[in-house]
Amino acid sequence: MQSILNFESLLGHLADTPRRRVAVACPHDSHTVEAVEAALHEGFADFILFGKADIIKALPLMDKYAGRVDVVAIDDTDEAARAAVMAVRLGRADVLMKGMLNTDNLLRAVLNKEHGILPQGNVLTHITAAEIPGRDRLLFFTDAAVIPSPTLPQRVAMVEDIAGVCRAFGIDCPRIALIHCTEKTSPKFPLTLDYGQLKEMAAEGHFGHVIIDGPMDVKVACDPHAGALKGIVSPVDGRADALIMPDIESGNVFYKTLTGFVGALTAGMLVGTSAPVVLPSRGDSTRAKLCSLAMACLTATDR
Amino acid sequence: MQSILNFESLLGHLADTPRRRVAVACPHDSHTVEAVEAALHEGFADFILFGKADIIKALPLMDKYAGRVDVVAIDDTDEAARAAVMAVRLGRADVLMKGMLNTDNLLRAVLNKEHGILPQGNVLTHITAAEIPGRDRLLFFTDAAVIPSPTLPQRVAMVEDIAGVCRAFGIDCPRIALIHCTEKTSPKFPLTLDYGQLKEMAAEGHFGHVIIDGPMDVKVACDPHAGALKGIVSPVDGRADALIMPDIESGNVFYKTLTGFVGALTAGMLVGTSAPVVLPSRGDSTRAKLCSLAMACLTATDR
Repeated sequence: MQSILNFESLLGHLADTPRRRVAVACPHDSHTVEAVEAALHEGFADFILFGKADIIKALPLMDKYAGRVDVVAIDDTDEAARAAVMAVRLGRADVLMKGMLNTDNLLRAVLNKEHGILPQGNVLTHITAAEIPGRDRLLFFTDAAVIPSPTLPQRVAMVEDIAGVCRAFGIDCPRIALIHCTEKTSPKFPLTLDYGQLKEMAAEGHFGHVIIDGPMDVKVACDPHAGALKGIVSPVDGRADALIMPDIESGNVFYKTLTGFVGALTAGMLVGTSAPVVLPSRGDSTRAKLCSLAMACLTATDR
Repeated sequence: MQSILNFESLLGHLADTPRRRVAVACPHDSHTVEAVEAALHEGFADFILFGKADIIKALPLMDKYAGRVDVVAIDDTDEAARAAVMAVRLGRADVLMKGMLNTDNLLRAVLNKEHGILPQGNVLTHITAAEIPGRDRLLFFTDAAVIPSPTLPQRVAMVEDIAGVCRAFGIDCPRIALIHCTEKTSPKFPLTLDYGQLKEMAAEGHFGHVIIDGPMDVKVACDPHAGALKGIVSPVDGRADALIMPDIESGNVFYKTLTGFVGALTAGMLVGTSAPVVLPSRGDSTRAKLCSLAMACLTATDR
């Protein structure tokens, strides 16, 4: 498989693969519906909508995309969320998508020990893919949204997850940069010691075919000249496919700076669950929501 | 005084003000010398160079800018650093600049309790000014380089310092955004409670004439549309002059993303000391080093 270098190629790739099925909890707002409609139009996903009868049965896309949209009328929001999660758990859907309900309420259903979709021992984290003007390929990073300050075991899961997403995009040997404000491994910054452990695990083959290095800053990770100027020699070589951010604050700052100052188009999803979870935010453009759905459908595994 | 909206205006402003005096520790490398020469050419600073006799006495700028450059020949690097710091302490220089020596070694002289230039009780932090393509004015932020995870008292000092720098740039009532990945004040994120305290202190007039709000993300802080889309009403109103970053990691990611992805020109300096300290890094362009010197000269107080 050739690498998928941008979101246009992602949509092109999905056009040639079997359609995925997306369970949507509470598609009661225009923001969610427009994303669903965009994905139906692109043709890479079918949908099961869980929500209020009078709203979801009246959606115009029911006629236009007959046979590709199922509805399950449940008026109570939390119950609709639980049902959507159950559809994923039962293998009726490959992807879960949030509509108009609080993220916390959806996550409660996702994380429920008996009926949820986070396998025991798995770590829930967030992965973003960014299409950045002037860059020749996508940049993946984690975690801008879920874990405030990851522990070493959580970071191990983050590396595994982001490597898996990179491979789904056709990057056979992802270059993963461990981001930090310094280049030195030092007890002064305990995180850099964790990074040392991750590199040892990588050398032992724990993460499969990957190139991992760090600590390094985002500029050294993404710009071959920046590293050369600082005299840094690294197998990542300024061409990182994926960044492991130090904490949620830096992940969030990176995400907001890319979208707010760089004009990047981003897609995002939760991983660690048995199916990817898409949580569009009101601030996302329709295109960004569509790309999030596409990324989730690409990385969903056959179940 | 009119606000200084970009670095060009800063240099123009300095052309009309008395020259400042900069003490340089160990200007033994071309990177440092080219910054010194650029500032001499612009005309806003004179210099005292502390370093190896055979190098500094042979510099071509000694002839070209006769009368504006003093040299103090000291072959030992640490001793030269201590002498440069002492020149500041004695009021012979208004700004300190690092040349070719380790940052740690210079800081040891700066922080020395008996002979240094950090007044007791002051907090050493780093402030960056960024000129961002497409933005109509400079954006200031702290701290990308010094304090890993600021305590509340350290943050109070950071707000005081950055407000002072904004005022030196002619911003009478700086809009200061307290950056965080969430918009909610919650015990789940202890930092947001500190932010609440800072807002209370601001309301009590502790920081003078300022507008402070948060927690908010960098996009909401810097883009009026982003806040409107999320339904956020804030006196900062998407027009922040200054950002208080959550930690050094997010500060550093912001800095490296602005320079690496956005093409921003940045100036930076240490504050909290009795005179600003400029620490150019090899990765900085000559223009960036010149702007750092200019920012330090603007904000240096008469002593």
